[in-house]
Amino acid sequence: MRLKYAVIGSGGIGGFYGSKLAKKGNEVHFLLHSDYDFVLENGLKIDSKDGDFCLEKVNAYNNTNDMPKVDVVLVGMKTTNNHLLKDLIQPILKDDTVVILIQNGMGVEQQLSIELPNTHIAGGLAFVCSEKVGPGHIHHMDLGKIIIGSHNRTDHSLLQTVCNDLLAAEVPCEVSENLYTTRWQKLLWNIPFNGLTVVLNSTTDQLVKTENSKQLVYDMMLEVIAAANACGANLDKALATSTMDMTLSMKPYAPSMKVDYEHRRPLEVNAIYTQPILEAKKHGFVMHKVEMLEKQLQFINAQLQ
Amino acid sequence: MRLKYAVIGSGGIGGFYGSKLAKKGNEVHFLLHSDYDFVLENGLKIDSKDGDFCLEKVNAYNNTNDMPKVDVVLVGMKTTNNHLLKDLIQPILKDDTVVILIQNGMGVEQQLSIELPNTHIAGGLAFVCSEKVGPGHIHHMDLGKIIIGSHNRTDHSLLQTVCNDLLAAEVPCEVSENLYTTRWQKLLWNIPFNGLTVVLNSTTDQLVKTENSKQLVYDMMLEVIAAANACGANLDKALATSTMDMTLSMKPYAPSMKVDYEHRRPLEVNAIYTQPILEAKKHGFVMHKVEMLEKQLQFINAQLQ
Repeated sequence: MRLKYAVIGSGGIGGFYGSKLAKKGNEVHFLLHSDYDFVLENGLKIDSKDGDFCLEKVNAYNNTNDMPKVDVVLVGMKTTNNHLLKDLIQPILKDDTVVILIQNGMGVEQQLSIELPNTHIAGGLAFVCSEKVGPGHIHHMDLGKIIIGSHNRTDHSLLQTVCNDLLAAEVPCEVSENLYTTRWQKLLWNIPFNGLTVVLNSTTDQLVKTENSKQLVYDMMLEVIAAANACGANLDKALATSTMDMTLSMKPYAPSMKVDYEHRRPLEVNAIYTQPILEAKKHGFVMHKVEMLEKQLQFINAQLQ
Repeated sequence: MRLKYAVIGSGGIGGFYGSKLAKKGNEVHFLLHSDYDFVLENGLKIDSKDGDFCLEKVNAYNNTNDMPKVDVVLVGMKTTNNHLLKDLIQPILKDDTVVILIQNGMGVEQQLSIELPNTHIAGGLAFVCSEKVGPGHIHHMDLGKIIIGSHNRTDHSLLQTVCNDLLAAEVPCEVSENLYTTRWQKLLWNIPFNGLTVVLNSTTDQLVKTENSKQLVYDMMLEVIAAANACGANLDKALATSTMDMTLSMKPYAPSMKVDYEHRRPLEVNAIYTQPILEAKKHGFVMHKVEMLEKQLQFINAQLQ
């Protein structure tokens, strides 16, 4: 029996991974919002560094009440809309459905598992450069790996099956036994680059090519590693250097927060900054530089509204 | 015998204080650069919250070799040009001339006293909102007080005479016995507001009216106070609150660094950020937030060149 998938939030992340699964023959149901009519008529178009493709017939919905119940919910929407999540996904949940939050930041699984205490909640960390560039049109520029891990189950067999489906669909995938540490590892990149590209009106390549900003990025990475370790995650200091090298080899990129900023959408300051800061503080660690960037982003965010 | 004045850098600061002195009948010689021809023909025009006035006949020069030797040199130019200062002022110095650096930041007197070891060097901290708005045209918007203090003399009598001239010219003035502490006190305002208005593309009123940025400004002020005290200056914590209240009551203002940024002129990052950071580090204190703002400004500064 093949797993049945739903994608909630079919943008640069959800739309990309969902399309890869659908292309390989998996049954995938997409929830769409502004692009619903367009995708129903024209399908989804993926320009990918691994090869362009189109999904001409898409199971498109604009309401989860019309969708079938599924085995796996892939959540690709922004954390700024997570207050809507519980009501959105309840109609498509079975007893053993796993909800995988492919979202940035910290604390998103905790929040949803309070709202849906009996549901299997998991997280997905997408190490991918991908964004929606038009209605039903996604551009996958670089990287692609996704790491998934359970938040509230010790049996990883369902996630392993999802992982196998993704691998079969040519998506590099891994099941993490420690989602918490993996979230901190993703924050190591997101915390400096998402915020600084917004505040300094820049792209990742400019930040790592200029000596002063590179130093600042590096200092912030060390602060994230120290915070993570204070919280009991286990991040090696060498990750700062390897993450920097990885970014140096990446194509010039505007992280999701920069894209949100340019489209005057709310920034994910809470999930990516405030929650990790609070988490570190709970463990007695003050993130001085991250706090400063948080306040700057909150100022910018307030002006966007 | 009345004192003879020279103003080096006749912009929003030097031009304003020099004009006030000249209006009261003091002999003031102005060094001008781009505005020389205009001011020679049209004089200086000051729009001031204390009453507008014009100086129709101005002792204007475009070269210090043409200027008379003076008793007092008021330096109003940017610290980013301080490498030119020694050669600029040497032709107008007598044995007992005092050079008053009305400049922002830290370490400017130290630097000049290395270059001119026998000269009386002093500093001036201008608590004023004033800027050049056109050729020979200065707009004085708010405040106005100047605090002057000697860097390398214990006899304050000459500075007291300068102070009396300024007071007679209706400029609130004070002689400080501790220039070092006064410089830190000015930095308490300059460090948060100069940099944050640039990085957040904002004005002072927006920063203090928005809760998050107000908190950030306040945190940075506390960091400056802690650094100052670690360096042996004596700043009371309550200064953060009173400086914040003062700014709340000020008219909306773009600090000098924001004005420089908008005109794509080099930013005074070294004097206002790097030097205080190094000074604090010498005394074992790390300015985390100020270091971060310094790096952000260096990134922006490099892009302006």
